[in-house]
Amino acid sequence: MEITLVKSLYKETEKFANSSVKVSGWIRTLRDSKSFGFIEINDGTFFKNVQIVFDESLENFKDITKLPISSSLSVEGTVVLTPQSKQPFEIKATKIVVEGKSSSDYPLQKKRHSLEYLRTIAHLRPRSNTFSAVFRVRSVAAFAVHKFFQERGFVYTNTPLITGSDCEGAGEMFKLTTLDLNNIPKDENGNVDFSKDFFGKETNLTVSGQLSAETFALAFRNVYTFGPTFRAENSNTARHAAEFWMIEPEMAFAELKDYMDVAEDLVKYVIKYVLANAPEEMEFFNSFVDKGLFDRLDNVANSDFGRISYTEAVDILKKCGEEFQYPVEWGIDLQTEHERYLTEKVFKKPIFVTDYPKDIKAFYMRANDDGKTVAAADLLVPGVGEIVGGSQREERLDILEKRIEEMGLKKEDYWWYLELRKYGETKHSGFGLGFERILMYVTGMSNIRDVIPFPRTTGSAEF
Amino acid sequence: MEITLVKSLYKETEKFANSSVKVSGWIRTLRDSKSFGFIEINDGTFFKNVQIVFDESLENFKDITKLPISSSLSVEGTVVLTPQSKQPFEIKATKIVVEGKSSSDYPLQKKRHSLEYLRTIAHLRPRSNTFSAVFRVRSVAAFAVHKFFQERGFVYTNTPLITGSDCEGAGEMFKLTTLDLNNIPKDENGNVDFSKDFFGKETNLTVSGQLSAETFALAFRNVYTFGPTFRAENSNTARHAAEFWMIEPEMAFAELKDYMDVAEDLVKYVIKYVLANAPEEMEFFNSFVDKGLFDRLDNVANSDFGRISYTEAVDILKKCGEEFQYPVEWGIDLQTEHERYLTEKVFKKPIFVTDYPKDIKAFYMRANDDGKTVAAADLLVPGVGEIVGGSQREERLDILEKRIEEMGLKKEDYWWYLELRKYGETKHSGFGLGFERILMYVTGMSNIRDVIPFPRTTGSAEF
Repeated sequence: MEITLVKSLYKETEKFANSSVKVSGWIRTLRDSKSFGFIEINDGTFFKNVQIVFDESLENFKDITKLPISSSLSVEGTVVLTPQSKQPFEIKATKIVVEGKSSSDYPLQKKRHSLEYLRTIAHLRPRSNTFSAVFRVRSVAAFAVHKFFQERGFVYTNTPLITGSDCEGAGEMFKLTTLDLNNIPKDENGNVDFSKDFFGKETNLTVSGQLSAETFALAFRNVYTFGPTFRAENSNTARHAAEFWMIEPEMAFAELKDYMDVAEDLVKYVIKYVLANAPEEMEFFNSFVDKGLFDRLDNVANSDFGRISYTEAVDILKKCGEEFQYPVEWGIDLQTEHERYLTEKVFKKPIFVTDYPKDIKAFYMRANDDGKTVAAADLLVPGVGEIVGGSQREERLDILEKRIEEMGLKKEDYWWYLELRKYGETKHSGFGLGFERILMYVTGMSNIRDVIPFPRTTGSAEF
Repeated sequence: MEITLVKSLYKETEKFANSSVKVSGWIRTLRDSKSFGFIEINDGTFFKNVQIVFDESLENFKDITKLPISSSLSVEGTVVLTPQSKQPFEIKATKIVVEGKSSSDYPLQKKRHSLEYLRTIAHLRPRSNTFSAVFRVRSVAAFAVHKFFQERGFVYTNTPLITGSDCEGAGEMFKLTTLDLNNIPKDENGNVDFSKDFFGKETNLTVSGQLSAETFALAFRNVYTFGPTFRAENSNTARHAAEFWMIEPEMAFAELKDYMDVAEDLVKYVIKYVLANAPEEMEFFNSFVDKGLFDRLDNVANSDFGRISYTEAVDILKKCGEEFQYPVEWGIDLQTEHERYLTEKVFKKPIFVTDYPKDIKAFYMRANDDGKTVAAADLLVPGVGEIVGGSQREERLDILEKRIEEMGLKKEDYWWYLELRKYGETKHSGFGLGFERILMYVTGMSNIRDVIPFPRTTGSAEF
């Protein structure tokens, strides 16, 4: 008999009523009394389990009652509608075959486990309700991102992860080598001889695909990256990982306002798509992980995001009478406490803060005419703070060269980036969205380690 | 005036007839005579250019005639249908504004350039016809892959790129470190002290996400990865890169046959999707890159793939009378010459070769009852040879442990992989498809360096 997927049983229950089906999956719970029993199995295709009713008419009845949780089965039986029960149907088993008997020391027994403990069994945690929900939402959200951009004609661009230099001048990078670390070849000056390394020079893992993506935007107009990014920062927080996925769109013939429009649409699109395409999982999060989740997401999906300048934001924060741990002055980088105050207490919805002081922003951001600020904007959302950062990019060759020098960077390292300004510059803008940040926001999960299948953080590269 | 995208002009030409529009883009060609001129501009949204007609009624007529190729413009004008010409319409300009004047040393002049030369200007080559076509097809094909799996309920899984050990035992890996290579800390035995490294131990870049993906298949049933993979192999060929993208589906409750069905459907789906969604680009490849392309792709998309065993394949090759460079005996790994002979000369369509000798395949492939072969299958296609490799995975704990020992690997390194067999094993299968391999096949491009935006190969990590 052909296998029927549990997802189909839930989606077309009426169709299967009173008919014979065969399902396969893993035991989530098993209860039995003397002559009959109940098994909930999950077959991986759907968040919810199917209840199997079995009794002593089965020749292997006794063996089945003794099966450990997580044993895999195939079950033939009749679909019986149970409109008066919690679950809309159950399967009355006529035959149960054990595919793989689990061991009685299976760590995911019915009791609730801490998220910290579940991280130590990352190979098994997707079998729990919480992580089944998290990682299916991760998949649905990733597809939403691709769908959003493809529908708008953006070209998906795979920028390289291995880079020849720290081009963004941003933060700590992982070095990459095939040299024997026990016996590093040295040149005549006693320095590492990278000419003997795989690429013939020093290489690192990228911290951002932005500069590469700009080259493609100046050919395809609208492009996006969606891939892994790395930071070797020694920060042991709930929001930082050494390996994470970034979405970095770049748009030619686009100003700061255009980036904000696209970013606002993207965030709303992903939220709506996930709510529509993973409703069982989202109900679970709203009930068991974050009781205010649906209210928060509805608010974001249905409000027009606010837009204020950094200078206005600083004014508001200075006059609001709130005691901040980190005092506010024009010129500081806003801290999470400031960001959350603005979005949660003042605006009560997501806001873009625009036109930051140039000294706290990257060299490639477009200089405003005031000589003090750049055309940058961060998106702040209630409950989290910053979730998107972006800017108009400096397209004027002379100003860009001057900024590179001011920041103590080397022009030669950016020869190809500068040539984009030499050969048909246009206004262009782009932004970066940490995929895990939006996942945490959409699911209510509060630790980045719990939205990445096998997280890599300071001191930890297990599995 | 709002900007109209060139793609819209081509898709809804009738709608725009005789109306005023504004477009922006980069000059691809410019010709002028005394009182009028023609510019072809490309705005990045569509493979084809738009012809702009301008004359001396424009106040900046003279300046425009002197603009270098690749200068960026915005143009206002009237859409005029030209059914008698090569292009279906042109724009009669009423105003042309220069956004960014290019430099006259712009390297992509009209003459044809070699692919080798274009690799040295990887930041500009997407502006050429060939690479505009390649990288839009790359984007369209990537989306096809996601769409295929999402429509079938597969969960997209981001397996880690940083790994704690060489778990597949496959090939050379890149080491990853934050240690100071000029001053490597040593332990008391004089070896590298990895406890001082970022993760507190030795780490590498992954060569495959398969083992991690299996953990997710045993929770979600059907999953796929689609992400970067790395090989530090010193092989300077047209088919190998150090960084490339892999698609690795894993399916629980699935046998070898099920993997072959899904892989066959996937290859056909991607081909059909690209032909339907990038028709201009595919026409270009068929006309200028590979004149037999459409015939070849039609053959693949519309034939039932053949399936023969390795043992049958060896028999055919031994009896065929062909002189091979590498002689055929049962037990050898098939070479590209053998694979191409089978698929091009014998079957004249794609074939799966199944049940390879266990000694030439990986430890995780399921042992067949004959004691000599494993339930593996490679997909061979005309013109290329192997394009997909996969197998049923060994789900029997005792046999898997024995294989790990036989291969000289350490069981401790695979504790979590082995636990998948302990806690509810099921039959399961999966495969790997190199994304660049299928791109080369679909476009007719013959060097992997020409289907990756910024390729990384032995000795080369430019840009």
